Amino acid sequence: MRFNFKVIFNILGLLLMLNGLFMLLCLPVSYYFIDHNWTSLISSGSISILTGFITWYLTRKSESKELRKRDGYLIVTLGWITMSLFGTLPYLISGSIPLFTDAFFETISGFTTTGATILNEIEQMPPSILFWRSLTQWIGGMGIIVLAVAILPFLGIGGMQLFVAEAPGFSPDKLQPRIRETAKRLWLIYVGLTALEIVLLKLGGMSYFDAFNHGLTTMATGGFSTKQESIAYFSSPFIQYIIIVFMFLGGTNFTLIYFGLKGRFLSIWRNEEYRTYTWGIIITSLIVTVVVFGGSGEDFEESFRYSLFQVVSIITTTGYVTADYTSWAPFATVLFLVLMFFGASAGSTSGGVKIVRHLILLKNSFLELKRQLHPSGIIPVRLNGKAIPPDINFNILAFIMIYITIFATGSILMAMMGVEFETAIGAVAATLGNVGPGIGDVGPASNYADIPLIGKWLLAFFMLVGRLELFTVLILFTPHYWQK
Amino acid sequence: MRFNFKVIFNILGLLLMLNGLFMLLCLPVSYYFIDHNWTSLISSGSISILTGFITWYLTRKSESKELRKRDGYLIVTLGWITMSLFGTLPYLISGSIPLFTDAFFETISGFTTTGATILNEIEQMPPSILFWRSLTQWIGGMGIIVLAVAILPFLGIGGMQLFVAEAPGFSPDKLQPRIRETAKRLWLIYVGLTALEIVLLKLGGMSYFDAFNHGLTTMATGGFSTKQESIAYFSSPFIQYIIIVFMFLGGTNFTLIYFGLKGRFLSIWRNEEYRTYTWGIIITSLIVTVVVFGGSGEDFEESFRYSLFQVVSIITTTGYVTADYTSWAPFATVLFLVLMFFGASAGSTSGGVKIVRHLILLKNSFLELKRQLHPSGIIPVRLNGKAIPPDINFNILAFIMIYITIFATGSILMAMMGVEFETAIGAVAATLGNVGPGIGDVGPASNYADIPLIGKWLLAFFMLVGRLELFTVLILFTPHYWQK
Repeated sequence: MRFNFKVIFNILGLLLMLNGLFMLLCLPVSYYFIDHNWTSLISSGSISILTGFITWYLTRKSESKELRKRDGYLIVTLGWITMSLFGTLPYLISGSIPLFTDAFFETISGFTTTGATILNEIEQMPPSILFWRSLTQWIGGMGIIVLAVAILPFLGIGGMQLFVAEAPGFSPDKLQPRIRETAKRLWLIYVGLTALEIVLLKLGGMSYFDAFNHGLTTMATGGFSTKQESIAYFSSPFIQYIIIVFMFLGGTNFTLIYFGLKGRFLSIWRNEEYRTYTWGIIITSLIVTVVVFGGSGEDFEESFRYSLFQVVSIITTTGYVTADYTSWAPFATVLFLVLMFFGASAGSTSGGVKIVRHLILLKNSFLELKRQLHPSGIIPVRLNGKAIPPDINFNILAFIMIYITIFATGSILMAMMGVEFETAIGAVAATLGNVGPGIGDVGPASNYADIPLIGKWLLAFFMLVGRLELFTVLILFTPHYWQK
Repeated sequence: MRFNFKVIFNILGLLLMLNGLFMLLCLPVSYYFIDHNWTSLISSGSISILTGFITWYLTRKSESKELRKRDGYLIVTLGWITMSLFGTLPYLISGSIPLFTDAFFETISGFTTTGATILNEIEQMPPSILFWRSLTQWIGGMGIIVLAVAILPFLGIGGMQLFVAEAPGFSPDKLQPRIRETAKRLWLIYVGLTALEIVLLKLGGMSYFDAFNHGLTTMATGGFSTKQESIAYFSSPFIQYIIIVFMFLGGTNFTLIYFGLKGRFLSIWRNEEYRTYTWGIIITSLIVTVVVFGGSGEDFEESFRYSLFQVVSIITTTGYVTADYTSWAPFATVLFLVLMFFGASAGSTSGGVKIVRHLILLKNSFLELKRQLHPSGIIPVRLNGKAIPPDINFNILAFIMIYITIFATGSILMAMMGVEFETAIGAVAATLGNVGPGIGDVGPASNYADIPLIGKWLLAFFMLVGRLELFTVLILFTPHYWQK
């Protein structure tokens, strides 16, 4: 047999059981707020766990436990889709999102840590359902970590084998037992930082409920909020700075955070992507402060905070909002649209193209000008002092090209449905990049409720494609993949 | 000495003399219409010819006539800039465009065959000045042919050595005498087709003046018109179809037209770029007809003609307008913006990225998915049945990347000057792609008059960079180029 379907379904079964258990985690919230949703949560959870258990049980015995590369693409894609399908249950059964399309959009937006929402009145939602919504992002974030550390390098996607090559216990050849250790360690960091943020947000004056929810969605660079106004609701500068710091951490290569905890600060600073990430944010925020707010002396802190918050929020693909940046100036709209194509670090929970790919793109552009004069010389691209193999270099460029092709095609398709110009390109950029809010009618002051039905499915597809680094999903559409 | 400045200036001197002679060509028009501009034309022409002659005379004796690659970039870039600087004289001296920035914008828009205009009342302009305006595009077109056939392959830019490799007498290694023959032959085609179009437009009911002007600007895929309304002024379907055909020819690889005249139709049809170009136009026009106009049976011809005209006009980067497509539907705006990034065939007078590069990009994307599964196999990209060498393949991808980087950076800079979102990205896309009209406030129903001063200079720079296939200009900005 070409694919090891038994093992594939076995893993999907396990994921479903996990999904159900997380749903049951929302029960205490329902109990505390008496929001009358415990039946819908228990039934959602049971359906997930039961379906998962049956699938797992029926497939537990297979001749070979071995998984090949070809199986990997299928597991990852189906994994995210299955989670998103069953993740709709709490919304549907509770009736808080009655339409399946909307529920699926909201769930896949959660699991892909995008943060695009179709909800018009977030505060009217039952607290336990909002908690489930935040949880989907947090679970998605955990998935992304395994994906980045273990699965993508194994599948050889988009140069990922290179960017996280310094991860402890890393080997690009096969899934080693030590990879498990790495994933566990990075998960511990993820859980730890989430907990720390929740404590700090509570200290900053948030309610326990808000602190928990925002803690879950910050580290995942997800951006779902419990408030219609998003972070603009919390005017305290302390809270906003805390969130800035944790969005920044969420967009940092987790291996570097691990190094930081070990005190290896030099390894962090030697990392070119990290340096670009840090300086890029500082410089861009200062430019926004000066150009948009005129850098006026009096409320410099406030305008800098607004600028920094939005720059960090968009570049880390979190998507929290403290102010409607599309109303600031034409400059801000164009800039933030462009920033949606950046994404933060590889090996973080952020989506998009990622800074390291842009770095390599930029270096290639300069080198190509040099190559023009010396066509015979071989001039490799270097990252962190090491030459990048030509095939990986090429793969990275191909990645960005495919990304832009999907963006352009997607924008045309959205516009074909009658969606306005800015909204069409903003919606595609924001979902493909897993940012959340876009520009135009899906801008920071609005949401995706009014997107046409087919449009929502298309955008859901883009969230998935963007989240899984394009190749994982797209390869399933090539006839070559299915051939013997 | 590093550069052969003597020969460089000698050539620039020759170009200036030529420029002056062309200005004097407008005298009969001034005489016929009695528009009182013969003094300004004679003085403009004399200044150009005299400056050119002195430069040529002072540099006529040089130790070595040899030109190296490094000199080539400088000649081409300086050539276009010098022509554009002196080309402002008729506008400035006649007072028809009093501001230097505007005059320079209009002139470089001419010589780069872009067609972006700052003129608000075209019909109020003196006929002889309008004729000069059309001539700049026609001269630009001639320049582009030499560039494509002889210079770019010699400089090894953007895979150009490959696309026109089938041109008769072609050799990628050095400028051969036979290249001169090729250039002459293609010029003859250019001149012949221009003459043919002028005759046909006259037969279609245009005045001699309009026929001449539009003939000059169609084959150059320039798009300057003598009417404020552009081609919409000429409602005759015959005229519109004629212009469609000649825009199509202007966007066709001139070597293929040469083959056509020789009766080698199979060579034409075997050319992948040509096939994509033809089918792409037909299919896109049909989609626009159906989506925008509903493909209604009654006036199907008319809606198809409008669609076809705009698709051909934008994809060939001509920029003529028969209807304001940005008012059709959001779909049309997004589609035409994307089309601005296409450009027509390599070896034609059209600007932009060119279809062949998109073809190679697309093929690479599919192959990269295949390479994912077989990382060890070497899978080359093929064009017209031949494998493309890896370095050229890479150069093409780098070209597109740099193109998009300039587009994104340019849009941010334009927006920084307070230009609205659509206008900012539309203006950059339309000038970098040498299209002319963009979207938003620089859309087909409007012009570039209200762009801020610095913005006009920036856009002028983009026209130049786009026209000279990026590398020719950008390489001058690398320190490496100037080093010993």
